[in-house]
Amino acid sequence: MNIEPIAYIHTDFDEKFGIPRQSGRVRSLTGRIVFVPEYRKPEALRGIDGFSHLWLLFDFSLAHREGWSPTVRPPRLGGNTRIGVFASRSPFRPNNIGLSCVRFERIEKTPDEGDVLIVSGVDLLDMTPIYDIKPYIPYADCHEDAVGGYADRESGHRLDVVFPDEMLELIPDEKRQAASGCLSDDPRPAYQNDPARIYSMAFAGFDIRFTIDGDVLRVTEVVRR
Amino acid sequence: MNIEPIAYIHTDFDEKFGIPRQSGRVRSLTGRIVFVPEYRKPEALRGIDGFSHLWLLFDFSLAHREGWSPTVRPPRLGGNTRIGVFASRSPFRPNNIGLSCVRFERIEKTPDEGDVLIVSGVDLLDMTPIYDIKPYIPYADCHEDAVGGYADRESGHRLDVVFPDEMLELIPDEKRQAASGCLSDDPRPAYQNDPARIYSMAFAGFDIRFTIDGDVLRVTEVVRR
Repeated sequence: MNIEPIAYIHTDFDEKFGIPRQSGRVRSLTGRIVFVPEYRKPEALRGIDGFSHLWLLFDFSLAHREGWSPTVRPPRLGGNTRIGVFASRSPFRPNNIGLSCVRFERIEKTPDEGDVLIVSGVDLLDMTPIYDIKPYIPYADCHEDAVGGYADRESGHRLDVVFPDEMLELIPDEKRQAASGCLSDDPRPAYQNDPARIYSMAFAGFDIRFTIDGDVLRVTEVVRR
Repeated sequence: MNIEPIAYIHTDFDEKFGIPRQSGRVRSLTGRIVFVPEYRKPEALRGIDGFSHLWLLFDFSLAHREGWSPTVRPPRLGGNTRIGVFASRSPFRPNNIGLSCVRFERIEKTPDEGDVLIVSGVDLLDMTPIYDIKPYIPYADCHEDAVGGYADRESGHRLDVVFPDEMLELIPDEKRQAASGCLSDDPRPAYQNDPARIYSMAFAGFDIRFTIDGDVLRVTEVVRR
C-alpha cells in the first residue's frame, strides 16, 4: 500500500541526539503540526478538542534502509542485548512507521498554514512526515494492568541537570523548560559512562554542550548554531 | 512511502458486522497472527513475551476508496453527527491504517506457519494485513488522565444477551464466550431501534441471528454458513 504524508511536524530538534526516547517524557516540548494543502481542511479537525491526547503515525524518516534486521539493540539496554524488532519500538523495522502519543494543546488559526495543531510531549524530529492523527480513546488505549517488559525498567531514570544561569539565559524563555527536560531524560546512547566526554545536543537553533558524571548532567556551553 | 504486510491475522469474523468497535472490548475474542514467509523469523519476536499488550498497525482493507472525506459519521453517534476524520478512528481516512491494542497471549510454534502470535481482545476482520507489531509501553502509552471526547460516552454501553442453550451448543465450546461478548457490545449501526428487525452476525462459520428490544438481545437462530 502506498501512503502519503498528510502533514509535517515542526519541532526544536533538527538532529536525533537528545530527542526523548518516548513521547510524553517531556511535557513542555511542543510541536506544530502543519497540514499539507490537500489535507488543510478545518472540518477534518472537528471535535478534536474533546480529546486530551492524540496518536501520531509518522515516518521514521532517518531510518530508511534496504532490507530489515530481525533483531535490534535498544540503547537503553546498553546497546549489547539483542531484542526482536517486533518486541521493540526501534525506528529500524520492516515498515518505518512510528507511533507516538502526544497531548493536544490547541488549534492555532494561521493565515498561511491554515489550522495548525499545537501538541506537546513530542519525541519527533523537525519536519517528520505525519501519516495519520487519531484520537486517544481511554477505554481502549489505556491499560492500567499492562506490563512493559524491559521497557518498564528505565522509565524512572532521570538525571539532575545543572544549567548555569548565564547559559540558560541564552535560550528563549519559553524553550528553557523543554531544554532541561530533554537533558534530564539522559540523551546518552548505550549507557556511555565517561565523565570527561563532552556531548552536544542541537536544540532550537543552539548547540547545548554538557558532561555527565554519575546522575549529574552539567551544561558547559550554549552556542548559536 | 510504500508499505507491505508483514503478517495476516486470522479471526472468526469474515464480515464486518459484529466486530467489536474497539480492541479490548471482548477479551475472549482471539486472533492468530501468521507472518508472511519473509518475516517468519523467531528472532524477530525475542523478548515479546515480556509484554502484556501489543499494538497492531493494520490495513483497513475494506475501507479503500478513491479520495478522502474530511468528516465521518461515527455509528455510535447515531450516524447523523459529523466529526472530523482526524478526531475519529473511522476506517475511512487518507491513509487506511488502523491501530489496535491487543493482549499478547502466547507464541504457538507450528510446523507450517512458523511462530504464530496468539492475541486476544481483537477487533479485526479475518485475513487483515498487518503492517507492524509494537510492544505496548505502559509509561508512554497509558494515560490515566486522558479525556476521550464523544468516545467516552459509549464505553459502558452493553446489552444483556439471551442465548438459548440449544442454540449456544451449536457453537464450539471455546468460541461461545466470544460470541456472546460481541453480541453484548451491540453490533447495530447508528442506534437502529426496531425490535422486529432480525440481525445476522457471521461468526466462526455460523450465522447468529437475533433481535434487540431495549437493552436485551435475544438470539433466535444459529445456522452453519
